[in-house]
Amino acid sequence: MAKDKLINQESMVTLAAIQFDPQFGQKEENVKRTIELICKVADQGANVITLPELCNTGYVFNTREECFSLMEKVPEGPTTQAWMEIAKERGVYISGGLGEMGEDGKAYNSCVLVGPDGFIGKHRKLHLWEDDKVFFEPGDLGHQVFQTPIGRIGMLICNDMWYFESFRLLALMGADVVLCPTNWVVEIDGPAKTLGPQLCMTNAGCNNMFVVAADRVGIERGCEFPGMSCIVGTDGWYRAGPASEDKEEVLVATVNLMAARRLHMNNMNVVFRDRRTDLYDEMLGSGLKSLPR
Amino acid sequence: MAKDKLINQESMVTLAAIQFDPQFGQKEENVKRTIELICKVADQGANVITLPELCNTGYVFNTREECFSLMEKVPEGPTTQAWMEIAKERGVYISGGLGEMGEDGKAYNSCVLVGPDGFIGKHRKLHLWEDDKVFFEPGDLGHQVFQTPIGRIGMLICNDMWYFESFRLLALMGADVVLCPTNWVVEIDGPAKTLGPQLCMTNAGCNNMFVVAADRVGIERGCEFPGMSCIVGTDGWYRAGPASEDKEEVLVATVNLMAARRLHMNNMNVVFRDRRTDLYDEMLGSGLKSLPR
Repeated sequence: MAKDKLINQESMVTLAAIQFDPQFGQKEENVKRTIELICKVADQGANVITLPELCNTGYVFNTREECFSLMEKVPEGPTTQAWMEIAKERGVYISGGLGEMGEDGKAYNSCVLVGPDGFIGKHRKLHLWEDDKVFFEPGDLGHQVFQTPIGRIGMLICNDMWYFESFRLLALMGADVVLCPTNWVVEIDGPAKTLGPQLCMTNAGCNNMFVVAADRVGIERGCEFPGMSCIVGTDGWYRAGPASEDKEEVLVATVNLMAARRLHMNNMNVVFRDRRTDLYDEMLGSGLKSLPR
Repeated sequence: MAKDKLINQESMVTLAAIQFDPQFGQKEENVKRTIELICKVADQGANVITLPELCNTGYVFNTREECFSLMEKVPEGPTTQAWMEIAKERGVYISGGLGEMGEDGKAYNSCVLVGPDGFIGKHRKLHLWEDDKVFFEPGDLGHQVFQTPIGRIGMLICNDMWYFESFRLLALMGADVVLCPTNWVVEIDGPAKTLGPQLCMTNAGCNNMFVVAADRVGIERGCEFPGMSCIVGTDGWYRAGPASEDKEEVLVATVNLMAARRLHMNNMNVVFRDRRTDLYDEMLGSGLKSLPR
């Protein structure tokens, strides 16, 4: 926490993560519930609000037909429009996960960023997890950082978080905070149900930025989602959470978002100067050059 | 834990981490202590033993003169020779951190890998931390994976662990386990004294490999070292530890090392196939191309 105070200038922003249990296929009710919870955290002073992955549709599709029937255009569709409306009304930024029907007739596991002035941008999940590969196309929008009056915002969805490359690229692109709508799944035999919170901690700490993960809870068609949403600071430690594994819950934390622009870890180290780019070139970019394993 | 059992073939290897309190400048006594502790874990069945960073010299040098006077050649120097001798005697692999005087008159913060058949190789710390930059040159041996009869072994030292790129490169090069001699320092105001164990968990889990971190304890010239050594499995969860923050301690865990070669997370995902190398090329390798931040 002290790390946030190492700079004089204070740009306090209140981050929020909303953890709830979307009901499969009940889009209208799910979006209504997100609006209620957005109002709840806005009442607590939240400026930047993150909702779970696919929180308008649910996650466990049975068929492509079923999946495609639940997709909608972004930003023209009703979910994004509802979030734009409440964002304007409450003067907040919202990142929420939703099923997107692309202009090209392909479905994407996407999230949007909307703010007081309307639609800002969208991220399409880059690293598809398990049956995602049946229903969605891999994201084709790459890594993006959106400039807003309160700071630079990047977004990643669930399995994207398992790829350090994505957090690193967003950091190199200048992100102050990465918002992560997610549907973490239960991992086998771990002492906790997911490694998700650890991923938030290390990627925030090693990149000197804020990370917010909003996970869902509940059991949907036999698939259990483990909650544990969290808000993590530039030093890699929790600012709020982790939330419970099975309850609807909201997290709120007020942080100095500009602490992410502080360069020095100490008198000798600057994270990005110290990267050994002379050595990374060899293989990190290209899978083709990796050795047989 | 169950993840280790997903393959039929069993190549059980016992990994060990030795956490102790080296005394500054007392090389002979420190090396003697490492031999005693190596024998202790060998008695418990250990095959692969990791010792802390700079565990022959201590870490907090006051002057370059003092530092240089404690360096030794590798593998000709007495520390490496002592570890080679006990490795042969006990039939074990040992990775230990030590101060190295290079052929070129430069000092390196290094670690060696020795085994029953002698010297195998050395790693020179790539990402120097704080006053490391005063005393040592940045490592010039890059990332290396050493092939041994029990599996492929990579090594990283302390601040190297804060750079995901290094773990990822070793994984792409085929490492089954990464041994990490370390002297983690106490971080400010966190709920635990270091983020080190979280780094082990996420890098092991996301790269599907084993990670062993052997940290030191004690307070040396006012600098506190926070222990918490650990052994982590391919699923990112502890197999042993984390050890205490302030006590000499040994950790031992028997694992199926070949679980690191298991490709599939599930029926759809293979970590390395799923990397979006089409997107990483743009910036990961080169710091020059990173945006102004």
